[in-house]
Amino acid sequence: MSIRRPESGPEKAVADWWRTDIIDMKPGEISYYGYPIESLIGNVSFTQMIWLMTQGELPSPEKAKLLDAALMSAVDHGPQAPSIAIARMASTCGVGLNNAMASAVNVLGDVHGGAGEQAVTFYQMVNEIAASKNSSIEEAVIEGLAKQRELHGKFIPGFGHRFHPVDPRAPRLMELIAEAKADGIVEGRFHSIALQVEKQLLNEKGKAIPMNIDGATAVIYGELGIPAELARGLFCLSRSVGILAHAWEQTQQGGRNKGPIPRDLLWTYDGHPKRDMKNKD
Amino acid sequence: MSIRRPESGPEKAVADWWRTDIIDMKPGEISYYGYPIESLIGNVSFTQMIWLMTQGELPSPEKAKLLDAALMSAVDHGPQAPSIAIARMASTCGVGLNNAMASAVNVLGDVHGGAGEQAVTFYQMVNEIAASKNSSIEEAVIEGLAKQRELHGKFIPGFGHRFHPVDPRAPRLMELIAEAKADGIVEGRFHSIALQVEKQLLNEKGKAIPMNIDGATAVIYGELGIPAELARGLFCLSRSVGILAHAWEQTQQGGRNKGPIPRDLLWTYDGHPKRDMKNKD
Amino acid sequence: MSIRRPESGPEKAVADWWRTDIIDMKPGEISYYGYPIESLIGNVSFTQMIWLMTQGELPSPEKAKLLDAALMSAVDHGPQAPSIAIARMASTCGVGLNNAMASAVNVLGDVHGGAGEQAVTFYQMVNEIAASKNSSIEEAVIEGLAKQRELHGKFIPGFGHRFHPVDPRAPRLMELIAEAKADGIVEGRFHSIALQVEKQLLNEKGKAIPMNIDGATAVIYGELGIPAELARGLFCLSRSVGILAHAWEQTQQGGRNKGPIPRDLLWTYDGHPKRDMKNKD
Amino acid sequence: MSIRRPESGPEKAVADWWRTDIIDMKPGEISYYGYPIESLIGNVSFTQMIWLMTQGELPSPEKAKLLDAALMSAVDHGPQAPSIAIARMASTCGVGLNNAMASAVNVLGDVHGGAGEQAVTFYQMVNEIAASKNSSIEEAVIEGLAKQRELHGKFIPGFGHRFHPVDPRAPRLMELIAEAKADGIVEGRFHSIALQVEKQLLNEKGKAIPMNIDGATAVIYGELGIPAELARGLFCLSRSVGILAHAWEQTQQGGRNKGPIPRDLLWTYDGHPKRDMKNKD
Repeated sequence: MSIRRPESGPEKAVADWWRTDIIDMKPGEISYYGYPIESLIGNVSFTQMIWLMTQGELPSPEKAKLLDAALMSAVDHGPQAPSIAIARMASTCGVGLNNAMASAVNVLGDVHGGAGEQAVTFYQMVNEIAASKNSSIEEAVIEGLAKQRELHGKFIPGFGHRFHPVDPRAPRLMELIAEAKADGIVEGRFHSIALQVEKQLLNEKGKAIPMNIDGATAVIYGELGIPAELARGLFCLSRSVGILAHAWEQTQQGGRNKGPIPRDLLWTYDGHPKRDMKNKD
Repeated sequence: MSIRRPESGPEKAVADWWRTDIIDMKPGEISYYGYPIESLIGNVSFTQMIWLMTQGELPSPEKAKLLDAALMSAVDHGPQAPSIAIARMASTCGVGLNNAMASAVNVLGDVHGGAGEQAVTFYQMVNEIAASKNSSIEEAVIEGLAKQRELHGKFIPGFGHRFHPVDPRAPRLMELIAEAKADGIVEGRFHSIALQVEKQLLNEKGKAIPMNIDGATAVIYGELGIPAELARGLFCLSRSVGILAHAWEQTQQGGRNKGPIPRDLLWTYDGHPKRDMKNKD
Repeated sequence: MSIRRPESGPEKAVADWWRTDIIDMKPGEISYYGYPIESLIGNVSFTQMIWLMTQGELPSPEKAKLLDAALMSAVDHGPQAPSIAIARMASTCGVGLNNAMASAVNVLGDVHGGAGEQAVTFYQMVNEIAASKNSSIEEAVIEGLAKQRELHGKFIPGFGHRFHPVDPRAPRLMELIAEAKADGIVEGRFHSIALQVEKQLLNEKGKAIPMNIDGATAVIYGELGIPAELARGLFCLSRSVGILAHAWEQTQQGGRNKGPIPRDLLWTYDGHPKRDMKNKD
Repeated sequence: MSIRRPESGPEKAVADWWRTDIIDMKPGEISYYGYPIESLIGNVSFTQMIWLMTQGELPSPEKAKLLDAALMSAVDHGPQAPSIAIARMASTCGVGLNNAMASAVNVLGDVHGGAGEQAVTFYQMVNEIAASKNSSIEEAVIEGLAKQRELHGKFIPGFGHRFHPVDPRAPRLMELIAEAKADGIVEGRFHSIALQVEKQLLNEKGKAIPMNIDGATAVIYGELGIPAELARGLFCLSRSVGILAHAWEQTQQGGRNKGPIPRDLLWTYDGHPKRDMKNKD
């Protein structure tokens, strides 16, 4: 057996079926977007590698630091989150950590994992309004909020939190972005938009609807030019850490077939009273 | 430890969190929608049980037979389907059959598993047009096709097939439905709509765009009053059979880390030529 | 584009990579293990199709009825089971029914879904002891129990239940098997073994450790010659019904990001008291 | 609604059901293993956070750098790996990036994702032999190899590669570990063991069976005191990056229901010739 990358003929069509810009290999050689792996190891951090793999170029260390903050800050929000509860329950069912992680990451859908993506999309809309109409951020935010509500309902993605009066992650992330803006690392456009949204929501409601983790990481993703849909994928990477941590802790705690509530409790049955097959019609 | 279903207080709120009409239990007793399990076993087929579990009432045997045909006819369309290929590949990675099934069922999404659901929705739209405007099925189909294309593009879900000039499953299923209609088991409204769609597509195009498996099973789901979204779930049950069969065959064939193409072939790399970290800017 | 099944050359190697006995296709033709689909539709039930797909031959209707009973009786055991809870939670996260089903089926691992498989293996071991030593079932069960405990610990798969003093599914299934034995449909060997295990456990303990659903369905799988590992796969199909039913019910109930306990409760934190980064060493 | 963490009574039992050392919350406060999130953001890298979350303490930056290298070096080995192929195929089926990631991570099982875990276990066995018998690493490796083969067959996890004569990732990682050893950051025990295994395999076979990525990352995990099973989980995090990158690239390339081979090729059918239902017995 030899390794082939056919240059013509029907086998080329087969090899072409799996076409990628990401990774190239020859025996003894691996490169990612052109960079030999041995030149990356030791010189590029995990976060820089995440950037390279998903965007095709290496980031500056300063920009990578912002992505790093977005990734490290969203790893976990506790076992009340379905994804974390699933990871823990799965770990007691006789499957591997990889399987527990899969069942959990799988539910980071539009509702559970989508707010960050939606916040990026919302900021981008505001940004495009400002650019296309040559309007101030203040004006663009007012118009953007109206359009967002018309399209997607009253909740503004990235603002307000069911549990935290102020989400402690958001202000710290915004500080880091402000520093990066001051240092000329990012333009700061999305930073301004997000602050203006917060201000406008306060104006409208007469009480603060402060930015949450999704709103703050979306500023980072926006500043770094990361597409909204990819932002969801990056959130999945981030939350995978919490998922793994809880799956691993539960594995060490032991337990078998851990259900959602203690074993001596039953659920509430609201259905049809007991009935007889014979009289079913 | 005793088993409790609390009748008041905070524990009731906890038990209420898991509220269902489907299943009730006491020690030694299990019932589904009110039917004790021991009265169902031996009297109700797997397909009737699927109906009861998803719709809350037992079907007549004649109606269950139609659902049975929809389920048995869609089990597999070969290893070129991503779901089946995934099931086979997963089985060589050192995970269980349950895990192989999960990775595969998971991809029965809007594109891979959604055509049946979309066809039910489309038929329902035609049916509602006819009902609300008191128009003939012929007129409603013309209007429905126009509306469908406006909303979702040129492909009509349930009609035409990339591979089969005539999908051999569709005419047989339509025969069964016609028999059920003749016997007064179903009304036959969706049967008429589907035939009229086929006729209209032929008129428009000058060549046949025949009904496929999704279009035919959607007639069954429509006749049986099964909601479109649930039809997707039932398709997932059906395709799970092919997924299991292929996972199991691959398990018996053996193999380790089976990739999508033979091991001596490589993919096509289209990306950046080799480059040096030092010159990266 | 034409559809090719290459008969020689490198493309054959590619097509051979996906080699199966299950399904064959030509444009307009689909067959499963040699049976054209149009001859199966209307003549073969969903359960018979499950049998054909996983075992390569069509069963007699009488044997299929036993498999049917095994499948219909194990669909659900309530939302305290991790798989069912996961299905319900996933349905509130903004993913499809297919995704909710996948996350749930995925956890039917060695602990949550493996007891049936283990019970088949245990019965087979007893059966082989009896055959190889020409001993009575009574003797083989005593030896088999000892060996089982030596290999896998004190719990005998298929016997005893945490919740049910008597699992109401087991005696009804055993009745069906007894009838099939009386009618000469199955040999009844596994039926005798299972009853003898129950008797022996009573003798040993002085109290009944009655057969549960896994022990009873394992008798069916054993009588039908279904391999133990495949029995797990079939259980996954069966439980997929309950998973779908609960996912669908939860979808209709609505809710967003449903966690395992009511929203106003928190988990118990047992970890390190609050500490300061600066003093971390 | 108020947020409660009950201190006694039955509600405490419910909250206790979800017991963790990882994360604590109050309204406006989140801490991980005691560290308030706002003190971690900006001060702790993603890799340090991964360490904290999975092991309960913050690592030194120097140790974190080694973990970082293990994580960044294993992200991808191309679309021939089942996990990567699955991610790409899933992305064309109408599911989200989270779902594509889940189907793919799920297959990082004992065969596809387990070599690193197995290599850690193997090194630990050698280490324990040396410690318990007070023997040299050379002697312990000889005994450990014999025991490994007796338990798990001829392949030594972490050594040899189907494709690469020398895996280019391994020597670079070993250089980093050697530097860390020279700087007193790690003890270097696993480094010595791994080199000795490589040497001994060369002696035995007369040709090099060089260390691969799994063997090299296992040295890092061993030096850092990371349990073998957790090493699998960390590999899943690492490979999730490649999985996301390929899922995202495929999303951008488009395509619908991408199967494993080009659409105009069929698989090889090896099964029963066409047959007739009527003559089925």
